[in-house]
Amino acid sequence: MAELKNDRFLRALMREPVDITPVWMMRQAGRYLPEYRETRAKAGSFLDLCKNPELACEVTLQPLERFPLDAAILFSDILTIPDAMGLGLYFGEGEGPKFERPVRDKGAIHALGVPDPEDDLGYVMDAVRTIRRALNGRVPLIGFSGSPWTLATYMVEGGSTKNFALSKGMMFDRPDLMHTLLDKLADAVTRYLNAQIAAGAQAVMIFDTWGGTLTPRDYKEFSLAYMQRIVAGLTRESEGRKVPSILFTKGGGQWLEAMAETGADALGLDWTTDIGEARARVGDKVALQGNLDPCTLYASPESIRRAVGDILESYGKGSGHVFNLGHGIHPEIPPEHAAAMVEAVHELSGPYHE
Amino acid sequence: MAELKNDRFLRALMREPVDITPVWMMRQAGRYLPEYRETRAKAGSFLDLCKNPELACEVTLQPLERFPLDAAILFSDILTIPDAMGLGLYFGEGEGPKFERPVRDKGAIHALGVPDPEDDLGYVMDAVRTIRRALNGRVPLIGFSGSPWTLATYMVEGGSTKNFALSKGMMFDRPDLMHTLLDKLADAVTRYLNAQIAAGAQAVMIFDTWGGTLTPRDYKEFSLAYMQRIVAGLTRESEGRKVPSILFTKGGGQWLEAMAETGADALGLDWTTDIGEARARVGDKVALQGNLDPCTLYASPESIRRAVGDILESYGKGSGHVFNLGHGIHPEIPPEHAAAMVEAVHELSGPYHE
Repeated sequence: MAELKNDRFLRALMREPVDITPVWMMRQAGRYLPEYRETRAKAGSFLDLCKNPELACEVTLQPLERFPLDAAILFSDILTIPDAMGLGLYFGEGEGPKFERPVRDKGAIHALGVPDPEDDLGYVMDAVRTIRRALNGRVPLIGFSGSPWTLATYMVEGGSTKNFALSKGMMFDRPDLMHTLLDKLADAVTRYLNAQIAAGAQAVMIFDTWGGTLTPRDYKEFSLAYMQRIVAGLTRESEGRKVPSILFTKGGGQWLEAMAETGADALGLDWTTDIGEARARVGDKVALQGNLDPCTLYASPESIRRAVGDILESYGKGSGHVFNLGHGIHPEIPPEHAAAMVEAVHELSGPYHE
Repeated sequence: MAELKNDRFLRALMREPVDITPVWMMRQAGRYLPEYRETRAKAGSFLDLCKNPELACEVTLQPLERFPLDAAILFSDILTIPDAMGLGLYFGEGEGPKFERPVRDKGAIHALGVPDPEDDLGYVMDAVRTIRRALNGRVPLIGFSGSPWTLATYMVEGGSTKNFALSKGMMFDRPDLMHTLLDKLADAVTRYLNAQIAAGAQAVMIFDTWGGTLTPRDYKEFSLAYMQRIVAGLTRESEGRKVPSILFTKGGGQWLEAMAETGADALGLDWTTDIGEARARVGDKVALQGNLDPCTLYASPESIRRAVGDILESYGKGSGHVFNLGHGIHPEIPPEHAAAMVEAVHELSGPYHE
């Protein structure tokens, strides 16, 4: 593998000194980029794009051609694991993800196997290898997975949900069944992330999109406990370097102390928490990643620059901060506004690292 | 006015001793009740129902006929104020609320007047008077309004929004304009709530549905400051009794300390905060209302009872707790499950008030 030319991102995650604050954006390879929409059209469906390592590599690299980002993230979907478990993932026209065969009872849950990453999700591992070759050491590559709880909600509901009727219904009435499902998912995610690391991922992130819809008690029992088990099972070093892990629970600002106890190297923050206060709460246990309100990018480049400055100031001096949005970039954002954010992070952060 | 026969709800909001914990449900008059759907069909549209004091009274009382609730809440919509400001509220078939004339620039915002509650929103005041007569002192009647920030998002977007592109865009780029709008809305809400109190509302609640989508700094500047001004301007006493006020910011669990400083008598809590921890954080400054995950009502009556018991135990001994869901009841909930919740609150809470 080529030597890493820009390791700011990995260093910040390990709270080692950096020259300026590293930055990337959740969903940086996505619909707000016209070149992404072109590749996507060429691929066919969204799922065809995810399953084509060459095209997944192409879109992964697109934002790096536009902006001086400090990390690349594997282009994929969080629902690859349930798909590999045989649930039949598909995307209806203009709809969110759906499963042909949701799992809603004991029989269906007990029948689920844990996928073998190279055999059953080889297209993801091929994408990781292809992207690493194409990156040629330019910046590190982030691998990722959905959290067990987040995956379970889709698997039980049969797709996206607003009200969590079936998944929380199962959690409340049949916690034993939900735990059986989460247990299998924790094993599957651990193997999946370790396979991504073996294939070349240099950091991994767990996206807990729906953990924030739980009560504090249910969050700890049904989401955090399984993420902690995954973190404990991760390959800690690869290519002679630490492989940092990042936990992100959307809406998890009230639970940062508990999240910091999992052994993860960094926590993703959404924008509802002040990053300086978050830093005071977690101390030197973890690095922090975030946390610009993605809506800020609707505003003018001047307003964006001011908002970036506020976050850098709130975090304050020293390493341990990876700049990011507090959630994925919206599809309507003009790419120049994303550019203004990236530029502002690099230009304004120097003094905090002197 | 008839003497109040059950004042548990008002006493708990003032942190005065009660025999058992009072309980009501956000959206208790709503689609989960077949009798509501019947009245709604009779009325015509949802807006016709809101604007008909007799039918609004009918649906307000329906849940009280089924469950031994300790409060009634005016049946209305948070968007009555912008409608009275001339924005032209309508509800498309199967769609959320929309405005014919959204306000998106200086001219439109400066042209807005502050509605006179009796002249421009007389149907709401008539509904309050009608409901009070029909209640005949059975339980107290809660009046309510949306928060200025929440109303502003609908007024600028022209309806519901997921991404807040225009409203947050204005907030970031033209904070002066957004403040002009919020200023008018704070005046309008204060007059509106005071008119409801004059008409017979015995407690008032401000619903800040979208404050939780802001950063901590923006929340304080663009939402909380205006709610504080409203609270300061509220009529404090009516019919020889205190009129308590309740602030509810969905997703505001991180900001309870600041909310408790506004002078409001109580805070509404969603389910992402442990109510016992919330009590420790706000001390004896405010009462707390909440906070069962509304999804709990998808589960069995036994699971519901257990979850109610957990919340009562977490809050602990003494007054200052009004039991409620952490958000509105979902339309799919079987009424028997709501009954199980109400029954459990009354049956299990006695020991906490001995």
